Amino acid sequence: MRVAVFRKEHFNAAHRLHNPQWTDEMNQRVFGKCNNIHYHGHNYELIVKVTGEIDPRTGYLVDMKILSDLIKQQVIDRFDHKNLNLDTVEFSNLNPTAENIAVVIWQLMRPHLDDHLELKVTLYETERNFVEYPA
Amino acid sequence: MRVAVFRKEHFNAAHRLHNPQWTDEMNQRVFGKCNNIHYHGHNYELIVKVTGEIDPRTGYLVDMKILSDLIKQQVIDRFDHKNLNLDTVEFSNLNPTAENIAVVIWQLMRPHLDDHLELKVTLYETERNFVEYPA
Amino acid sequence: MRVAVFRKEHFNAAHRLHNPQWTDEMNQRVFGKCNNIHYHGHNYELIVKVTGEIDPRTGYLVDMKILSDLIKQQVIDRFDHKNLNLDTVEFSNLNPTAENIAVVIWQLMRPHLDDHLELKVTLYETERNFVEYPA
Amino acid sequence: MRVAVFRKEHFNAAHRLHNPQWTDEMNQRVFGKCNNIHYHGHNYELIVKVTGEIDPRTGYLVDMKILSDLIKQQVIDRFDHKNLNLDTVEFSNLNPTAENIAVVIWQLMRPHLDDHLELKVTLYETERNFVEYPA
Amino acid sequence: MRVAVFRKEHFNAAHRLHNPQWTDEMNQRVFGKCNNIHYHGHNYELIVKVTGEIDPRTGYLVDMKILSDLIKQQVIDRFDHKNLNLDTVEFSNLNPTAENIAVVIWQLMRPHLDDHLELKVTLYETERNFVEYPA
Amino acid sequence: MRVAVFRKEHFNAAHRLHNPQWTDEMNQRVFGKCNNIHYHGHNYELIVKVTGEIDPRTGYLVDMKILSDLIKQQVIDRFDHKNLNLDTVEFSNLNPTAENIAVVIWQLMRPHLDDHLELKVTLYETERNFVEYPA
Repeated sequence: MRVAVFRKEHFNAAHRLHNPQWTDEMNQRVFGKCNNIHYHGHNYELIVKVTGEIDPRTGYLVDMKILSDLIKQQVIDRFDHKNLNLDTVEFSNLNPTAENIAVVIWQLMRPHLDDHLELKVTLYETERNFVEYPA
Repeated sequence: MRVAVFRKEHFNAAHRLHNPQWTDEMNQRVFGKCNNIHYHGHNYELIVKVTGEIDPRTGYLVDMKILSDLIKQQVIDRFDHKNLNLDTVEFSNLNPTAENIAVVIWQLMRPHLDDHLELKVTLYETERNFVEYPA
Repeated sequence: MRVAVFRKEHFNAAHRLHNPQWTDEMNQRVFGKCNNIHYHGHNYELIVKVTGEIDPRTGYLVDMKILSDLIKQQVIDRFDHKNLNLDTVEFSNLNPTAENIAVVIWQLMRPHLDDHLELKVTLYETERNFVEYPA
Repeated sequence: MRVAVFRKEHFNAAHRLHNPQWTDEMNQRVFGKCNNIHYHGHNYELIVKVTGEIDPRTGYLVDMKILSDLIKQQVIDRFDHKNLNLDTVEFSNLNPTAENIAVVIWQLMRPHLDDHLELKVTLYETERNFVEYPA
Repeated sequence: MRVAVFRKEHFNAAHRLHNPQWTDEMNQRVFGKCNNIHYHGHNYELIVKVTGEIDPRTGYLVDMKILSDLIKQQVIDRFDHKNLNLDTVEFSNLNPTAENIAVVIWQLMRPHLDDHLELKVTLYETERNFVEYPA
Repeated sequence: MRVAVFRKEHFNAAHRLHNPQWTDEMNQRVFGKCNNIHYHGHNYELIVKVTGEIDPRTGYLVDMKILSDLIKQQVIDRFDHKNLNLDTVEFSNLNPTAENIAVVIWQLMRPHLDDHLELKVTLYETERNFVEYPA
């Protein structure tokens, strides 16, 4: 009885894509408008997927209220209405691309789930651009 | 030429989460508002995924009209506008969590598909809570 | 500078459509599956529209956080995860059609908004059926 | 034959809500997380509504390609991937609330449409918060 | 107790935009890719809005099942999986723009609704282009 | 650091399902309304998934702008506002079912991606019918 459950949450943040080891011209060529020195922002939609066995006593894999609260503590409270580059330790030295944000969210969530549960993160930067980790 | 086809259908139902082997207090603590003795309800969105080889004569994996009719017969007619706890045999002794509903839908559909086809069920209880079986 | 602001919230509830002054046969003929004696349910999506002048000090018509909290107090806490027919005073003698639910929500919200603000309620019973009050 | 046509576009931007005539404490109390000194951001979804008579030669009210290009020139090129507070003249002295952004977009578009056409702007700041101007 | 109810339906059709009184060059310049001689197509999403008074016996404005059946008879059966230019009398001499299709749908529906009910039609040609009649 | 990135694009096209080796009656029985000799059409929503390792210099798997441009060149410019049966070489001898269109899009995209990247295509023919290749 192996199932996956998914919980969707969202947060709004500012960010700027930039590699400090490159020249301004190189950053502009690679990241284009996303390199804007004054930042831009997104409504990030986050889907957390947890896979495991159904508990026969509850009929639950995990209690969605508990999973939702965990996402709020580990992700939403940390990133919502923040400037990812300036207001977070996670992205002070890491480029806040959708790919990297998904990896960081996975790393923040993983220690708080039982070992026998699998975890996957999908992050929508816009309705048309999204990423999944691990693939 | 292995492809998957997906068909989306929906049904509306009432349910209550409850474990009859537990005290009322325990049920309340575990299931919270979902334990409401008078039931609550959802618009369930169902996605049925079938995987196999394309038939070169039709260009189809399966005829989506036939798949849609099968879902209607096996799932929608059984659960739509029903109280899952009171009006169905499937959940008379099984807690109608999203996880268990997805498993039951898979079991209802499986015998009606050719053996060489794979079947997966995704069930949205709300836009923000959904499950997949098998994972 | 007359603008409208909209806030979307949701709740899940069970209900049954029934006119106690009619025979069972008449109820069945008029309300069909929605007359199921054991109830069925929906994910209701609610959009509250408030119209008025922008406050030049804030750039707000109303603070969306305050509007959201008001909807939660007046509507969500009252109806979410409830059986509208059995668990609420509003529908103990009123048929809980989408039309009537929208009118009741308007009546619950109206006293809590300033007189110079206009109020309109849109209620989605399903993605394909929705109502607006006042029209 | 009076019809309305709607065109949907989007842009991503950073912003901060702030009234420079207030103390920091007052700004924090009124605008909360939206007052974050380092900005946050959104995916803004914009719907432009134009109302008028169908041209019997084309069957069009306006050519949607021309309307889309006009929105891109007047709105998207100006605000997309920008910090509204720092990178735009429109919000250098105006608080970039959804209400004010909708009014500004209307003012930017209005001169470029024929006088006999009506214009309305709907702006989604998030899926759950949106505004309309004029109301 | 004046309310509006909305019912959403959809149909898929091919069409070509063309004015037979114009040269090919003029048609190409005005209608661009939509003038393709071999047709292209859309998933049309249709929202029918009916406004009037709630019937106190039912709590309904109109029975949504009856409204849905009426849309199917008057609109879906006529246009679904059709070539609007070649397979319908309505567009044999009328350019099937979204504006004109909305007007035609209104004209097809209007005679079948009670005089005291108001009717409005919204038609999505794509997620980003839609029209409303009457405005 | 294996991730997947997804890019969503869309195109509108006409098509007809037909097997030239069958009688008209057989085609009508198998393909029903989709066999209409004058074609019908769809808004196709396309999701292209690319899987591989994050480039530590950019934080990207692939630049979404480059991926979007590639989809436009290889898929959108070829199929948008076209009659798939008449205007394309790909479907001159291949039935344009959603399954076959997904396979063709994969074949068109594959040569333009680095060998170490995996490619998957999801194609929505309608909101309720979609396919994935490879499965």
